[in-house]
Amino acid sequence: MTCWVSRLLPRNVHSLGTSSKNQRVEDCHRHHEAYGYFLPIQTRWQDNDQYGQVNNAVYYSYFDTIISHYLIRYCGLRTSLLTSPMVGFMVTNQCTFHKPISFPQVLVAALAVEKLGHSSVYYHLALFPPKATKELPSVNHWDLRDGFFSGHPKLVHFDSLACTNGSSVHVFVNPAPRKPTGLPEDFRRGLLRLVSPASV
Amino acid sequence: MTCWVSRLLPRNVHSLGTSSKNQRVEDCHRHHEAYGYFLPIQTRWQDNDQYGQVNNAVYYSYFDTIISHYLIRYCGLRTSLLTSPMVGFMVTNQCTFHKPISFPQVLVAALAVEKLGHSSVYYHLALFPPKATKELPSVNHWDLRDGFFSGHPKLVHFDSLACTNGSSVHVFVNPAPRKPTGLPEDFRRGLLRLVSPASV
Amino acid sequence: MTCWVSRLLPRNVHSLGTSSKNQRVEDCHRHHEAYGYFLPIQTRWQDNDQYGQVNNAVYYSYFDTIISHYLIRYCGLRTSLLTSPMVGFMVTNQCTFHKPISFPQVLVAALAVEKLGHSSVYYHLALFPPKATKELPSVNHWDLRDGFFSGHPKLVHFDSLACTNGSSVHVFVNPAPRKPTGLPEDFRRGLLRLVSPASV
Amino acid sequence: MTCWVSRLLPRNVHSLGTSSKNQRVEDCHRHHEAYGYFLPIQTRWQDNDQYGQVNNAVYYSYFDTIISHYLIRYCGLRTSLLTSPMVGFMVTNQCTFHKPISFPQVLVAALAVEKLGHSSVYYHLALFPPKATKELPSVNHWDLRDGFFSGHPKLVHFDSLACTNGSSVHVFVNPAPRKPTGLPEDFRRGLLRLVSPASV
Repeated sequence: MTCWVSRLLPRNVHSLGTSSKNQRVEDCHRHHEAYGYFLPIQTRWQDNDQYGQVNNAVYYSYFDTIISHYLIRYCGLRTSLLTSPMVGFMVTNQCTFHKPISFPQVLVAALAVEKLGHSSVYYHLALFPPKATKELPSVNHWDLRDGFFSGHPKLVHFDSLACTNGSSVHVFVNPAPRKPTGLPEDFRRGLLRLVSPASV
Repeated sequence: MTCWVSRLLPRNVHSLGTSSKNQRVEDCHRHHEAYGYFLPIQTRWQDNDQYGQVNNAVYYSYFDTIISHYLIRYCGLRTSLLTSPMVGFMVTNQCTFHKPISFPQVLVAALAVEKLGHSSVYYHLALFPPKATKELPSVNHWDLRDGFFSGHPKLVHFDSLACTNGSSVHVFVNPAPRKPTGLPEDFRRGLLRLVSPASV
Repeated sequence: MTCWVSRLLPRNVHSLGTSSKNQRVEDCHRHHEAYGYFLPIQTRWQDNDQYGQVNNAVYYSYFDTIISHYLIRYCGLRTSLLTSPMVGFMVTNQCTFHKPISFPQVLVAALAVEKLGHSSVYYHLALFPPKATKELPSVNHWDLRDGFFSGHPKLVHFDSLACTNGSSVHVFVNPAPRKPTGLPEDFRRGLLRLVSPASV
Repeated sequence: MTCWVSRLLPRNVHSLGTSSKNQRVEDCHRHHEAYGYFLPIQTRWQDNDQYGQVNNAVYYSYFDTIISHYLIRYCGLRTSLLTSPMVGFMVTNQCTFHKPISFPQVLVAALAVEKLGHSSVYYHLALFPPKATKELPSVNHWDLRDGFFSGHPKLVHFDSLACTNGSSVHVFVNPAPRKPTGLPEDFRRGLLRLVSPASV
């Protein structure tokens, strides 16, 4: 399978949503090197829609999952409304779907931080399918609990080009008055670890 | 509740994803007038996430629903893989979330067509919450089967400003070889009805 | 389409899950008369699975939706963890799927209360498809906000036999120590309204 | 956390849904020994509902996933409507929720076959949470692609008692005329491997 977007999109569609500068940035975000954190993603039977492929809305729940997973495991986020001093709201997100995927594929999601504001985080996200190789890799074991970081040898078992990439912006607010809240120092430290070389 | 994005986003976030020209286009797509077709959206208990608000991924399934609904009902789309001569794939989409919503709210989704290519359709989408009014409107009856078109009196019962707006691009392909396919004439006619004044 | 279960199931399957007494109870719960409250259910594109029909897991979210909707609207349930004195947990549920349904059908869900314990509620649930009639009913308007009660004229527009029926048990507990909590008087009153004639 | 159902349910609830004989069968299906096949299950942020716990409907999509995964990987099921000679429909299913779970837990699902009919399969299903142990197991690598079979050493890292167990019945039919179809020999052989000792 080759790239959907380049093959299918009318030439002028990109220009509707993204400037040519943004287009170049997007292209560079289709490679492993642009990302700092990786988490395997298990597809589900229900993810496939009537056309036998993962439905576009489901990708956003994959990306929510890697973000929340990283924030809980590496940045100390507590998500219980009863005890947490801050909650994160997505204010904008977008995806481009280059190649379809489907259950029962196991993929790897990738996360980078583009920018940290006072109370906001701007993420880049991607999804890489497994290489269609005959020799089965020893990567049939996954780290669902810890994920892994850039440069990990497991990454050779995945396509070097993302099948989907996207971006999103989180804003953190107090649970009750819903005012933006400054990101705590250790939280910020965890996120700085993922600031992508591509965005510097 | 006031507008989330304008209140919460750092000043420079918009410029990351959208040029200032696109920003103006987006603003104009927050009003009823920019849309041609409307469908009530029933929220579900499961749509709310841990923070008690509709999860961002769920909005994309609302927008999928209004698009598919319109294509089936007004453009003759057949969705069975066994009989359909073409299937639609989403190649890119994006949303901006201005104000949170939650179950059990009933909202109205809105659809416009920005552009029709040989095999592609570029949509604008929005979601309008019900007005927070005491006098209960007679619109507690809904048209889930037919939706309604621009100018319909029911629209006065909804906020004039979208709580969420977005856009997406569909490409239609043959089911088997997955090559882009020209849009049939009656299909195209159904879509032309929704070409938004805002985009002309 | 005729009944799936009776046509497809090997003769002895029912006896695995249900005694013959329970089987009779289940049969009687396939009719409008067994239910007190009704809520239209809007299907979504994403509800259909790869076989083009609503996935079994999705029915449970329909039933969650009618239950929560009734509890919020007619029994005073507050669902915010920050303010609610009790939360409901599902401890068991089951469904039998007699006939498939699919997007974009609009159905009506039905709710009855079989039994009220000190902190638990035992529900019966059903889903009725629209009648396959040519003369289009005026029921293309729906009441998504209030639902309607037994005997309502709208019900003539739906099949008299459920395409799916099920049951579930809710237990209400304190949010923090997670101990069962007695149901408040007005909450109990709202539920008593739905105690089904069939279960007396 | 202790067992929800035994602690919370009114004494007579079980008798509504299950005979005492079935109750004993259910109890024996809460242990690893009753199952032949295991697949890790990755939870998602969206799985948690407003109460911060995995929503009941989501468990059914976990169980769908292990069943489809096994049928595709070990029984030769092809799921494309365009090429498959048979499709499976769920005709009935049920779950009992003993203990809540939540994102980002990683669990293991378990599958057994109770009975094989001419065109039907009766499954038992369970979900086991990870042991709450300080010493982190080497099982932070998972086999999402192959799953594993009974007696595997990885199972010691999971609770020996299921947090949820259930059952379901699949009936296989031709895609087009939707008539029950006899299960092919190799398909049947794959399933016989999971016939649980508990059910003999």
